[in-house]
Amino acid sequence: MIIVMQEGASRREIEDVEREIVEMGYKPHPIYGVERTVIGAIGDERGKALLQQLETSPGVERVIPILKPYKLAGRELKKEKTKIEVGPGVIFGGKMVPVIAGPCSVEGLDQICETADAVKKAGAKALRGGAYKPRTSPYSFQGLEEDGLKMLAEAKARTGLPIVTEIMKESVLDLIVQYTDVLQIGARNTQNFDLLKAVGQTNTPVLLKRGIATTIKEWLMSAEYVMSQGNMNVILCERGIRTFETATRNTLDLSVIPVLKHETHLPVVIDPSHGTGHWQYVEDMALAAVAAGADGLMIEVHPNPHEAWSDGGQSLTPATFEKLMKRMKLVAEAVGREI
Amino acid sequence: MIIVMQEGASRREIEDVEREIVEMGYKPHPIYGVERTVIGAIGDERGKALLQQLETSPGVERVIPILKPYKLAGRELKKEKTKIEVGPGVIFGGKMVPVIAGPCSVEGLDQICETADAVKKAGAKALRGGAYKPRTSPYSFQGLEEDGLKMLAEAKARTGLPIVTEIMKESVLDLIVQYTDVLQIGARNTQNFDLLKAVGQTNTPVLLKRGIATTIKEWLMSAEYVMSQGNMNVILCERGIRTFETATRNTLDLSVIPVLKHETHLPVVIDPSHGTGHWQYVEDMALAAVAAGADGLMIEVHPNPHEAWSDGGQSLTPATFEKLMKRMKLVAEAVGREI
Amino acid sequence: MIIVMQEGASRREIEDVEREIVEMGYKPHPIYGVERTVIGAIGDERGKALLQQLETSPGVERVIPILKPYKLAGRELKKEKTKIEVGPGVIFGGKMVPVIAGPCSVEGLDQICETADAVKKAGAKALRGGAYKPRTSPYSFQGLEEDGLKMLAEAKARTGLPIVTEIMKESVLDLIVQYTDVLQIGARNTQNFDLLKAVGQTNTPVLLKRGIATTIKEWLMSAEYVMSQGNMNVILCERGIRTFETATRNTLDLSVIPVLKHETHLPVVIDPSHGTGHWQYVEDMALAAVAAGADGLMIEVHPNPHEAWSDGGQSLTPATFEKLMKRMKLVAEAVGREI
Amino acid sequence: MIIVMQEGASRREIEDVEREIVEMGYKPHPIYGVERTVIGAIGDERGKALLQQLETSPGVERVIPILKPYKLAGRELKKEKTKIEVGPGVIFGGKMVPVIAGPCSVEGLDQICETADAVKKAGAKALRGGAYKPRTSPYSFQGLEEDGLKMLAEAKARTGLPIVTEIMKESVLDLIVQYTDVLQIGARNTQNFDLLKAVGQTNTPVLLKRGIATTIKEWLMSAEYVMSQGNMNVILCERGIRTFETATRNTLDLSVIPVLKHETHLPVVIDPSHGTGHWQYVEDMALAAVAAGADGLMIEVHPNPHEAWSDGGQSLTPATFEKLMKRMKLVAEAVGREI
Repeated sequence: MIIVMQEGASRREIEDVEREIVEMGYKPHPIYGVERTVIGAIGDERGKALLQQLETSPGVERVIPILKPYKLAGRELKKEKTKIEVGPGVIFGGKMVPVIAGPCSVEGLDQICETADAVKKAGAKALRGGAYKPRTSPYSFQGLEEDGLKMLAEAKARTGLPIVTEIMKESVLDLIVQYTDVLQIGARNTQNFDLLKAVGQTNTPVLLKRGIATTIKEWLMSAEYVMSQGNMNVILCERGIRTFETATRNTLDLSVIPVLKHETHLPVVIDPSHGTGHWQYVEDMALAAVAAGADGLMIEVHPNPHEAWSDGGQSLTPATFEKLMKRMKLVAEAVGREI
Repeated sequence: MIIVMQEGASRREIEDVEREIVEMGYKPHPIYGVERTVIGAIGDERGKALLQQLETSPGVERVIPILKPYKLAGRELKKEKTKIEVGPGVIFGGKMVPVIAGPCSVEGLDQICETADAVKKAGAKALRGGAYKPRTSPYSFQGLEEDGLKMLAEAKARTGLPIVTEIMKESVLDLIVQYTDVLQIGARNTQNFDLLKAVGQTNTPVLLKRGIATTIKEWLMSAEYVMSQGNMNVILCERGIRTFETATRNTLDLSVIPVLKHETHLPVVIDPSHGTGHWQYVEDMALAAVAAGADGLMIEVHPNPHEAWSDGGQSLTPATFEKLMKRMKLVAEAVGREI
Repeated sequence: MIIVMQEGASRREIEDVEREIVEMGYKPHPIYGVERTVIGAIGDERGKALLQQLETSPGVERVIPILKPYKLAGRELKKEKTKIEVGPGVIFGGKMVPVIAGPCSVEGLDQICETADAVKKAGAKALRGGAYKPRTSPYSFQGLEEDGLKMLAEAKARTGLPIVTEIMKESVLDLIVQYTDVLQIGARNTQNFDLLKAVGQTNTPVLLKRGIATTIKEWLMSAEYVMSQGNMNVILCERGIRTFETATRNTLDLSVIPVLKHETHLPVVIDPSHGTGHWQYVEDMALAAVAAGADGLMIEVHPNPHEAWSDGGQSLTPATFEKLMKRMKLVAEAVGREI
Repeated sequence: MIIVMQEGASRREIEDVEREIVEMGYKPHPIYGVERTVIGAIGDERGKALLQQLETSPGVERVIPILKPYKLAGRELKKEKTKIEVGPGVIFGGKMVPVIAGPCSVEGLDQICETADAVKKAGAKALRGGAYKPRTSPYSFQGLEEDGLKMLAEAKARTGLPIVTEIMKESVLDLIVQYTDVLQIGARNTQNFDLLKAVGQTNTPVLLKRGIATTIKEWLMSAEYVMSQGNMNVILCERGIRTFETATRNTLDLSVIPVLKHETHLPVVIDPSHGTGHWQYVEDMALAAVAAGADGLMIEVHPNPHEAWSDGGQSLTPATFEKLMKRMKLVAEAVGREI
């Protein structure tokens, strides 16, 4: 870390800070500038929060971290990309770009099976569907819960597609783990640290959505929470951030793809359905995600969006999805990937 | 609700939408404009999500809600301000502006008791202190947990100050409820709907922080979650939102005070410590909050901020806090309130 | 427009509003709901601001516009896409996706000619280069001004590439128009309305960048300013918006591509160099832009980024640019376009 | 500046960077850490942009500035607060908190004189009124221009109130300077650098509004533009920033008051009318601004807001303004200021 002293900090204040640096287990290295002194603190700062505290020491202006705050999620200590297999041959992090598709909510056995058949036929590699639903209003449909999980299991038995479903609370973790191949952490729980620790103690791959106002650094720290408990199978999923623009439901931040390639070895999935909030915009953004190098996509498909119990406005029909898949395959080839 | 049809929507499409409106239990009322038709849907739309779905109907451009989505939290159905007593004579929502003060984290018995004594002497009406801590990094201090709760209980026994402490997960709710007078929901859990439902089933007042990217409307919907379970004692707490500005840790949005006065009957507390993230800025923003009409304040105080285990940089010393209290009392008088 | 009356608005207040609507040239159409009255105002509201004023009338809660505020820029009155030819065969808005490339600033004759040769060879269709530079600091390099324009002219004479250069003030408009094929309005001047009117009175195509906090609606209103003066040749250019994320210099909002396709007939160009601020991220975002359906790209290229006088960190070398062009061509083909 | 080298940067790369630092006129000072080398560059970096360029050097990860980028606007080189007298005894930056009041736009002689009389009677110390108006739509009222300036002059002759009016383009600077006591730079022109340079060459005090997405650092750099031309009389004016919240027109960032006290010697004025966009919210925010230590306020007052040609919804009536002034005086006294 670098400690920047205030202009006019006294010799005494500088020495006190140096002493504190030593007490915290680092080696101080002062640079006396024309107007200010800055002190380098040498040592591995990753995973330590203590030095930040020096900001309250007399004479200190600010403390600047040099190393990344994440260890397990970072690219510094693990160079090669992580590959995560969520079903037979369905691998995130390799040349293949698996597409996860399905309805926002499981609404019934027919609905989920019909969707599963359709998306499989179009080339999807995994099935999504919510049994527990986070809804802004307490008066909205909250999910079919365990019944929904059972319907997902039937759809899987029928199609072979691995299942991705959301977990919102620890108390149903043991139940959900029995039914799902990937545990999805939604955008409202990206910093629900107790939930992150809980899923970190399972062996099930975790799809960790970015919160609507989570920085990339914080998002990787949330991945670190899961990984620090032993579960290294974390798939990151960008689903749009909140900005001033209201023409789209969220602003899909595709630049996370190159940034994360640089910062982490974990695979990155893009969700253009939540990212835009309008089915008309999904196609262009899905193609863009593939071209930018996404390791997977997550797309909402409903047999009859107009009658969906949630998020109908951002769901594709099976026919539109099939058409999109064909176009995505062409783009994937153009950038050396396959779908 | 108002349904705006697309330019050139066909007579057939308009009739279909009218039929759907009737099926959903509303009365349709079309207005044929020069370029577009808009259809009013008459009926109580509060607590219903269904009409939004019409956005996916052929020929519909968009659906505009007219009534507020919240019922119990809104000012429409309850005009008079809610008063919430959290300890003998400590009332949020009346003429008094109670100040909640204390450290970010409970770090030990001496620390919490020393702080409790000091803030009580300066005029604080409640004691805050975290026993379970949400931290961005899994490597940071996570709280003393039950031991911390016991220390808070001792500080209360000693000073009579009611306790405000954070709850992060349902599994410790029964435990925390035994020790605390107010359950704090932190900014990362504002939309943790299961947790909101759980605290809604207790009788303990809830201090509901606004999330860093939660709109006022969503925040009130989170209050609605708690209230819909039967617990009407919700205190709203603004603690800064995330914006592009980095000179402060967050941007404290004081304009929630007049907006919430208009929208809700629930009391509003301001937290200038998290709102600014720098102790040097706390004083000015605390005075501003009182002048703007806040129903309470929440301020971090630590006997030795430099040695705090978390958030030292935004904590006041007991001496600075005492000076601030004196100034706040003068401002409170100037606007017809008392501290 | 729809005027929503307050709950409990009196008969008298409703009648007053109806009378005002008539006076403003619209036809009022009230709907009496269970709790509220809403009044439709029938008539062409485009280009009128007057009705918004009703928000200050007694008993009125809010006024909701139904039609878009833009006329000339909107897709409602002009369905077919606008094609803008900025040089022989260089057309924005058709099947071709022209790439504009060049340095941030013109720094000298050799620099600009060397760059022009290189980008032409790689397939760029226009040359960018700033002679007047908007810089955050008054102590930074401010551009070579007229000398820079002359150098651009030489580069054009040599390569045939049409020129795109920025205009920051009306007083040099006559000068710049002599040298450039496209007048660029930078992100800081998106709402410099006097400048927009001035360029609107020329015949030169205008490349209008989106401001860092300009909504799509405001951006189209800025295009409307130019068009309302008679110049219909407006090319929109997304270059990133300001959000809370700091890993990238701005957040490149690629979802403007599908949104603008729906809202306007004007072509859309993407600038991934300013959009990300790091040359390492430009390639992925450029490929994404092509896949999403951009009508053009604008990319910073410098013969020696390390010695650039401005924005070196986001510039590609000629070699990297050439490699990118090859990849972009493949993606363009995959989505039915050509570069 | 601090140059952070990449993990694994070679000895050669480090030496090259050191050589470049010397060539740029600084003294390099390397610190060899466990995983990384960081190099301090000693010398006065203010007003220099060159070192940032090192970010493109091989082996460099990032460059961190230590000193503030502003010299003249900063508190480091001028400790005492700047006092700016804009009319006889009307001083910004002292104990007095002058209130600037008046309509958004000058609409006629009667309107501006009636407002001037009313706000003077209530205690305002300066009159605002726009003669040149920046409007989002080209179809909205654009101001009375020179006629408006003449009406302001009559209102001044009548009341003695100094005038604050907006300048949007250099070509009318000579004209406006004859009529106004303070040149207002609006939020859309905060980074119109040519305009800043132009007003910097006059002797007239400048009220520089913060742009809707301008950081405090950039805002101070814009003040630096004015000051670097010789005009030291810059008054900063916060008027709300753009965030995700839509309940208010903008989010009024009152925390700029303590931040700017720390960063600059220039006085700070708060505009709660644009800051909130709703007259109902102006009172609370005006009181808050005074309590937080603002050096002045700017408030929209119109004799008949309902008939205002612009921004009627955020204007106070003379009666409401008078009541507010009384309350503001009490709060000013409570914090040791006077209005």
